[in-house]
Amino acid sequence: MDFKITLECLMGVLPDSLVEGSSKNKEFKGISSLNKAVQGDISFLGNPKYKNLVQSSKASIILLPKNYSGKPEDGQIFLRMKDPSRGLASLCSFLENELFPPPEKAIHPTAWLDETAKLEKGVTVGAFGFIGRDACIGENVSVGTHCHVGDQCVIGNNTILNPGVKLLSRCELGKNVILNAGVVIGSEGYGFDQVDGSHHKIPHLGKVVVEDNVEIGANTCIDRARFEETRIGSGTKIDNLVQIGHNVRIGDGCLIVAQVGISGSTEFEDGVIVGGQAGFAGHLKIGKGAKIAGQAGITKDVEAGAFLKGNPALPFQLAQRISILQKKLPELFKRFDETLGKE
Amino acid sequence: MDFKITLECLMGVLPDSLVEGSSKNKEFKGISSLNKAVQGDISFLGNPKYKNLVQSSKASIILLPKNYSGKPEDGQIFLRMKDPSRGLASLCSFLENELFPPPEKAIHPTAWLDETAKLEKGVTVGAFGFIGRDACIGENVSVGTHCHVGDQCVIGNNTILNPGVKLLSRCELGKNVILNAGVVIGSEGYGFDQVDGSHHKIPHLGKVVVEDNVEIGANTCIDRARFEETRIGSGTKIDNLVQIGHNVRIGDGCLIVAQVGISGSTEFEDGVIVGGQAGFAGHLKIGKGAKIAGQAGITKDVEAGAFLKGNPALPFQLAQRISILQKKLPELFKRFDETLGKE
Amino acid sequence: MDFKITLECLMGVLPDSLVEGSSKNKEFKGISSLNKAVQGDISFLGNPKYKNLVQSSKASIILLPKNYSGKPEDGQIFLRMKDPSRGLASLCSFLENELFPPPEKAIHPTAWLDETAKLEKGVTVGAFGFIGRDACIGENVSVGTHCHVGDQCVIGNNTILNPGVKLLSRCELGKNVILNAGVVIGSEGYGFDQVDGSHHKIPHLGKVVVEDNVEIGANTCIDRARFEETRIGSGTKIDNLVQIGHNVRIGDGCLIVAQVGISGSTEFEDGVIVGGQAGFAGHLKIGKGAKIAGQAGITKDVEAGAFLKGNPALPFQLAQRISILQKKLPELFKRFDETLGKE
Repeated sequence: MDFKITLECLMGVLPDSLVEGSSKNKEFKGISSLNKAVQGDISFLGNPKYKNLVQSSKASIILLPKNYSGKPEDGQIFLRMKDPSRGLASLCSFLENELFPPPEKAIHPTAWLDETAKLEKGVTVGAFGFIGRDACIGENVSVGTHCHVGDQCVIGNNTILNPGVKLLSRCELGKNVILNAGVVIGSEGYGFDQVDGSHHKIPHLGKVVVEDNVEIGANTCIDRARFEETRIGSGTKIDNLVQIGHNVRIGDGCLIVAQVGISGSTEFEDGVIVGGQAGFAGHLKIGKGAKIAGQAGITKDVEAGAFLKGNPALPFQLAQRISILQKKLPELFKRFDETLGKE
Repeated sequence: MDFKITLECLMGVLPDSLVEGSSKNKEFKGISSLNKAVQGDISFLGNPKYKNLVQSSKASIILLPKNYSGKPEDGQIFLRMKDPSRGLASLCSFLENELFPPPEKAIHPTAWLDETAKLEKGVTVGAFGFIGRDACIGENVSVGTHCHVGDQCVIGNNTILNPGVKLLSRCELGKNVILNAGVVIGSEGYGFDQVDGSHHKIPHLGKVVVEDNVEIGANTCIDRARFEETRIGSGTKIDNLVQIGHNVRIGDGCLIVAQVGISGSTEFEDGVIVGGQAGFAGHLKIGKGAKIAGQAGITKDVEAGAFLKGNPALPFQLAQRISILQKKLPELFKRFDETLGKE
Repeated sequence: MDFKITLECLMGVLPDSLVEGSSKNKEFKGISSLNKAVQGDISFLGNPKYKNLVQSSKASIILLPKNYSGKPEDGQIFLRMKDPSRGLASLCSFLENELFPPPEKAIHPTAWLDETAKLEKGVTVGAFGFIGRDACIGENVSVGTHCHVGDQCVIGNNTILNPGVKLLSRCELGKNVILNAGVVIGSEGYGFDQVDGSHHKIPHLGKVVVEDNVEIGANTCIDRARFEETRIGSGTKIDNLVQIGHNVRIGDGCLIVAQVGISGSTEFEDGVIVGGQAGFAGHLKIGKGAKIAGQAGITKDVEAGAFLKGNPALPFQLAQRISILQKKLPELFKRFDETLGKE
């Protein structure tokens, strides 16, 4: 990391912390775990189970809970605070803003805005950004370089489109949404009628609605609905290269890891967690808080709270047990042959 | 959906239909299934097995086959026609054109066309579109915003490149092709020679040829061939995030669902259907009309008409039977131990 | 292939070869395998096991090892050389440059370069290319159309960014790197803290470092690290649509086939080979030279030199054996029932 921060500046970021000890360093320049930190680094005790590592840590500054009982080494600073994990998060947010400053709030001279587009105050549009007819862009929205915002799109306040995002016509984004580079929202759904032996496209007239606080990973694709909408619920976080088909509905607060595929019209209730590369057939209901292991193949409805694995998917414990028994198949066949004779 | 349509307009779209009943509504504004439709909506009886739902449907207009025996409710209109599914398709195509009007036929002032590119009449090039040297663009082709059409590419009439498509040098698209946003056609094939322990790129001198009426989903990638061509047969429909390797040949009328991966030099005959996330090793032949279930792993040639599932892939019925027996493995091991004694 | 080459020109490309025989053809225009070549084509004997095909080949020119014992047909030319495979590679590189000439070394008039960006000599920036603040671009680098090179990026000499690549802020590319179209480097890592029941983004302050001679396939995504760096080792070749999470470290000379997913903080030693669609959980160590079959699911550390298959992954031979036994499960259950009676 290429940052330097003084103790004064750090105290500005973490005003409710108490300083114990002192350091000759004027500036501190890395964040690292307790056991990897070197002199000059900042570290933290986030999880109490690592408290034994504090004593031997070389970090120059350590963020600690108020009740930590040890004392800093010579030349080391303890910063005591209510919640060191939150403290770390605040520090990281501060540094993120330093290292990855948002682009200047301005419309880049190369950007193209349709004259009917409505932009609230503080909107940024990067180089070669395109904003279509009757698009409505909320306050402080950032549209990155090479982004396409289609006709009649609606984007809520403080939402960020990273470079190369394609938000196609009529789609809607809520507030504080983050779309990573290369995301495609609103592509045509995959549905065809058979007419005289050939496949004819079913027009997709609907849209995609992405609710507040959703984050979507690079090059992920979400298709628009046949008639109504494909919807991603508030606070859901989607990783890179995920495929979400037409008419899918994802609940609030779901976590969907990279390369997952969700076929058309499947519905997730709130809080569903899906491991990477899992796949879902269409028209399924996945119950609240269900957990699906990576690479699982889901072809039936899933009950709330279930934890499934494998293809066909089974309850996690059963799947684990069967995996163990499968390894014993050679032995079982051998015992069987020895006991009962070969056929 | 944000459309309104009058009965007169609807009759214009479906001129061969017979009106029965009447409605006070001047305009109709949604399309919905029989049991979800509300007053003001249009619905349809596409599959005769749902005919019992017609009587209780709240839809204001219902598209029905001529021989449907019931009568409309008060304030409800039946539109009788030969084939309500086709009628619905016609209506949807009409509405698609209203809701997602094609961009104005024009070269956007920000687009860049090489002076040697040849454009037939009616070509659209969107904002920041790029057309390379000696490219030949057919009539009424639409090249979206931020698209790249490489040197010496050939594009047939009425083909549509959605925003951000990268059609790389020397590739060819037929007529009525649709490439969704972010598609990459003509990237380098993945092939390396081992020279003195390191991997050396094998140049890929070939191209990609996409035949007429093919549709390709968002962010899908198709690599160019080593010498000759990677080819996608006429009428084949490919979903989002699919990977198609160098020298692959896909037959006519195939359906390839999202996130499928097809390794180099594999050939599909016509009418092959592949479920999402299935994978194919290289240099295979997949016979006519074969069906491959989602997430299957295909490492051997597949006979025409086969239906395979799993990895390693097995005939569908056998794979299903084995899945059921696997669930009984704990019981089998237990019975075995009880009967024959533990080892 | 749309090229023509004279014998003189070919001898210029392969100066150490010996000509035997003669042809009436003034120009030669295709490269094909021995058994598929037609008159006018160039072919080659790369692998001695195909030497029986030379005699019946219709190719007009055949690249052969010096010690090949046969004689050319009438009108056929043998070009004898030390290593025909290398000869073919030289010819292909020559033709690649003819068929896919690099763009003219120039900054396209539509490109946007921040005034603080530092470009060495011979840099190409294509149409609508964007170069951000304080970016450092090495000699002869080619930045394609619609590429984004973020603030403070560093790019080594002779590296190529194909159209639509997004290289986000602070990331670094070595020398002779090739990024295919649509690649995203430096997107935010997928990591969230649970705060009061909702997911809060963990800022990712690190970068991505891609070492020399790495090639990365179309639409592949590599996330930046939480604090330090995600790193791709020298000479590693990555295929299309691959997902590489934050803090992953890939060793030198690895091969990673299409649609593989690697979760955060997993480390590959040198020379690891991974088949398509395989998936890796986070925080794993994959030993030197390990081979992972396509679609495998890796959830534990892998020893150097291991060859694994399946999910859960097993040693290849054992996985193959179990696959065979699984097919016999119906028979086993039947024998069991017959011998011991049904329950």
